[in-house]
Amino acid sequence: MKKITLLINCPDQKGIIANVTNFILNNEGNTTYVEQHVDKDLGAFFMRLECEFDTNEKKLAQFKEAFQQQLASRNQMQWQMYDPDKTPKMAIFVSKYDHCLYDILSRHTSGELKVKIPLIISNHNDLKPIADAFNITFKHIAITPKTKKTAEQEQLELLKRHKIDCIVLARYMQILSPSFVDQYINKIINIHHSFLPAFPGAKPYHSAYKRGVKIIGATSHYVTTDLDEGPIIEQDVVRVSHVHDINDFILKGRDLEKIVLSRAIKLHLERKVLVYNNKTVVFS
Amino acid sequence: MKKITLLINCPDQKGIIANVTNFILNNEGNTTYVEQHVDKDLGAFFMRLECEFDTNEKKLAQFKEAFQQQLASRNQMQWQMYDPDKTPKMAIFVSKYDHCLYDILSRHTSGELKVKIPLIISNHNDLKPIADAFNITFKHIAITPKTKKTAEQEQLELLKRHKIDCIVLARYMQILSPSFVDQYINKIINIHHSFLPAFPGAKPYHSAYKRGVKIIGATSHYVTTDLDEGPIIEQDVVRVSHVHDINDFILKGRDLEKIVLSRAIKLHLERKVLVYNNKTVVFS
Amino acid sequence: MKKITLLINCPDQKGIIANVTNFILNNEGNTTYVEQHVDKDLGAFFMRLECEFDTNEKKLAQFKEAFQQQLASRNQMQWQMYDPDKTPKMAIFVSKYDHCLYDILSRHTSGELKVKIPLIISNHNDLKPIADAFNITFKHIAITPKTKKTAEQEQLELLKRHKIDCIVLARYMQILSPSFVDQYINKIINIHHSFLPAFPGAKPYHSAYKRGVKIIGATSHYVTTDLDEGPIIEQDVVRVSHVHDINDFILKGRDLEKIVLSRAIKLHLERKVLVYNNKTVVFS
Amino acid sequence: MKKITLLINCPDQKGIIANVTNFILNNEGNTTYVEQHVDKDLGAFFMRLECEFDTNEKKLAQFKEAFQQQLASRNQMQWQMYDPDKTPKMAIFVSKYDHCLYDILSRHTSGELKVKIPLIISNHNDLKPIADAFNITFKHIAITPKTKKTAEQEQLELLKRHKIDCIVLARYMQILSPSFVDQYINKIINIHHSFLPAFPGAKPYHSAYKRGVKIIGATSHYVTTDLDEGPIIEQDVVRVSHVHDINDFILKGRDLEKIVLSRAIKLHLERKVLVYNNKTVVFS
Repeated sequence: MKKITLLINCPDQKGIIANVTNFILNNEGNTTYVEQHVDKDLGAFFMRLECEFDTNEKKLAQFKEAFQQQLASRNQMQWQMYDPDKTPKMAIFVSKYDHCLYDILSRHTSGELKVKIPLIISNHNDLKPIADAFNITFKHIAITPKTKKTAEQEQLELLKRHKIDCIVLARYMQILSPSFVDQYINKIINIHHSFLPAFPGAKPYHSAYKRGVKIIGATSHYVTTDLDEGPIIEQDVVRVSHVHDINDFILKGRDLEKIVLSRAIKLHLERKVLVYNNKTVVFS
Repeated sequence: MKKITLLINCPDQKGIIANVTNFILNNEGNTTYVEQHVDKDLGAFFMRLECEFDTNEKKLAQFKEAFQQQLASRNQMQWQMYDPDKTPKMAIFVSKYDHCLYDILSRHTSGELKVKIPLIISNHNDLKPIADAFNITFKHIAITPKTKKTAEQEQLELLKRHKIDCIVLARYMQILSPSFVDQYINKIINIHHSFLPAFPGAKPYHSAYKRGVKIIGATSHYVTTDLDEGPIIEQDVVRVSHVHDINDFILKGRDLEKIVLSRAIKLHLERKVLVYNNKTVVFS
Repeated sequence: MKKITLLINCPDQKGIIANVTNFILNNEGNTTYVEQHVDKDLGAFFMRLECEFDTNEKKLAQFKEAFQQQLASRNQMQWQMYDPDKTPKMAIFVSKYDHCLYDILSRHTSGELKVKIPLIISNHNDLKPIADAFNITFKHIAITPKTKKTAEQEQLELLKRHKIDCIVLARYMQILSPSFVDQYINKIINIHHSFLPAFPGAKPYHSAYKRGVKIIGATSHYVTTDLDEGPIIEQDVVRVSHVHDINDFILKGRDLEKIVLSRAIKLHLERKVLVYNNKTVVFS
Repeated sequence: MKKITLLINCPDQKGIIANVTNFILNNEGNTTYVEQHVDKDLGAFFMRLECEFDTNEKKLAQFKEAFQQQLASRNQMQWQMYDPDKTPKMAIFVSKYDHCLYDILSRHTSGELKVKIPLIISNHNDLKPIADAFNITFKHIAITPKTKKTAEQEQLELLKRHKIDCIVLARYMQILSPSFVDQYINKIINIHHSFLPAFPGAKPYHSAYKRGVKIIGATSHYVTTDLDEGPIIEQDVVRVSHVHDINDFILKGRDLEKIVLSRAIKLHLERKVLVYNNKTVVFS
């Protein structure tokens, strides 16, 4: 049995659930899981389906064509179809902090993340030994204000050569240029070390400490051209108190960053995130 | 437009989602929300649908009959159909603790809980002033080991007379007899003041304190004939430490009890809970 | 045995803990609990002591004088001494939302909050029935931009007449003027319905919904003349997702507001909060 | 300045805080932090002090002797004195699960855990590559019911040879014999993958799934001769629902296990845990 994951969004309309599940049934498919969401303010409909087909590649191509012609175009649908058996490729961008990198790589080794990680890119050399220990290609591309443009060009070429589908910024301390971001829309996942929209930008733990908050957070989001303003995928928080100084904030925050980033990566890889209106629908 | 909520469970089978949503579409209905769950171990399928009909009562009765004959009986479905416009009736059983009662009644007054509360039953007189302040009938039925049988008979008559649909045990300190429970299967919601299955039975805060746990909890579940063993609807927890004595446990626990019980009541009233195999599917 | 609670802050210095506990011992007192905090950035020392004296009122006055002369003035201490047996008086300010008011009053009735609540002030009449049900004086003082000054004058007179020690703004939808706030510095507790500093000001749930956050919060803080910028006493959060609309945010937020506000009130009443540098030390 | 950490427990008595801090002051020391706890049920007093001395090793030895003679023996104190500059040595026991091992080693590399880790012992060979990647001696000691006694003997000799101070069981799937445990009382830290006392023993995630709980947990505790009954150091929990199958429980549980175990290790290494009556006082 061939499994397929379908992500659909379209204007909300009568009969849409029945129409889609029925179309699949009539094409010899079986819908095993469907989850949908209606944004009433926007009149928008979102659906994620998992279905099975007793089929071959050729028939599947016919199904896609029929789906587009008979269903999608009539209902103004935007849709993506994924083959859960095809493993996507992910690159990791890092600077000097190692905790998120360790976390992702050890989860990957444990089999938690269904993804290939052929490439780690960094503007520093510090984390090369970790990449080596996990047998992953590590490319050091230094970045200065002057070299940024050519450095990003070099990064992009590496990404193409390794056929990278998505990028994780694992505490990468550089801001990507809009022209870079535009080539991976909703495909670059960042971890910001605050409970956004509180404390965007640099040194959020310092700002949180200064404000005297009783809870700190971390936020994973897709990168857009507006810094720390992209669609939020996942957030989590941890309690702090007056006994904790900035170093404690940073240490506690690390655990948040690791977990929140890993959860976001997992959701992205399992095709459970649908972006609209600078927000996310995160299917369960 | 007439709204209907459908809860279905049946053996898992091909095409079931399409068949149900299609049946509704063919009967001039529109499925606005569908959520399902498959328990692969049991081969069991569970679904909750919200749908709209441009119809009248008579046509709805025909729909029900057709649903049973054409769909349910062929697919071994158990199903319930609810009219979200019909407000159910709930009785509250209490003893001497007032915090859960206050919480339920103030939420009810605020419009949070779509239910009628015509009746409060207690084995003590202590909380009558609260019932009075909220203008709800309060019946004091004392219970001793000797009078338990007749007391329960009296309770059951009151429940029938008030046409009660579901019962909340808001820290009611009596164990209901099996013959009582059998008349309200999956319709009696209890709050137990521990993180079940840890610390069932009496004085769970004392046991938790003695064991030196770092987190305490509360559990809301449907009452079955096995004490504290019924299907869990909702749980929550709060941190404690060595600085907290038993009174602190009790005080912190109160907040848990209130919130966990209220969430369970709300889920039950919104027909989001499906019981099977002594567990619950809680739709979102 | 007479119990005393001491709150002290002073420049950090050698021997300060020994000096204070020793002074108490030499004055026939017994320190039963001491908690301290050092802010190394500020070089500031904070301490909360609970101690017992086998004494009478006269001796206690002598102790206070000796404490000031022999210890406090020499060590640049600011200190407050509280008699935990003296019950403070609290006024509640409300507008139309009832959930925090219900919560405070039911906790008070249950004996959770050691305080007298002789007075509820509101700019609307809506919640008078709740005040009546709990037998508390309810004063309706309407406020318009024109009448604000005289209205606050009237409020202040009521507060003096009832000898109010602290004020709780239980979702009071008016901004207090600086001249009002100045008379109750660190004695007015507000609940703001967001995870500050995210979403200050009006309609935070709407802003949170628009931003697509995955967690919402509530913040209790002392009121200062800078709106929503006062020292944070307590915060808590709850998860939300795309399935929740603004009404769900509001409903989930209510539970946060109640609990966060009640915790802050309790901490304040138990003299566990020390304010410095627009932050709080919250003793355990 | 020489720093010292003091852990004290004794019968509760008048003047104890003043006496200890005063003794330190009179011996040219400065108490920088003191935290204490009184268990009123047991009449027991617990204290943790951090203090500084402008001293040398010889004077410190005199201080210890004076402390024992003038203070400890008179007040029936049990006490331990630690030099925070001396780094303790920790061995890790593992079987086949790698997530806790990865977590501890990456934290160690990041500088989070102030400890030396000279030795990893396992009853399987699977995790040797991880030990190699982190340059730590890995000893494979197979265990069968027949060889258990000699295997433990071999383990103990290794521990002595490496001068190990404490042992972490990082999902080590063997039960230590009482004679082994007796040699490292309150020095062996285990992680159990449930919210104890719920689901002790084998396969807790399976039991939790079967019971239909809505929250799962992990518990770190000192190992005693009663399986899963030792003093709890730390616990944490995560929400689950009907959508999660056993594999999801296991995956979610992993994150809990890692974090709860690491927190417990950190607390132990920082001398913040005091065991009494099969419970722990965990200083902040």
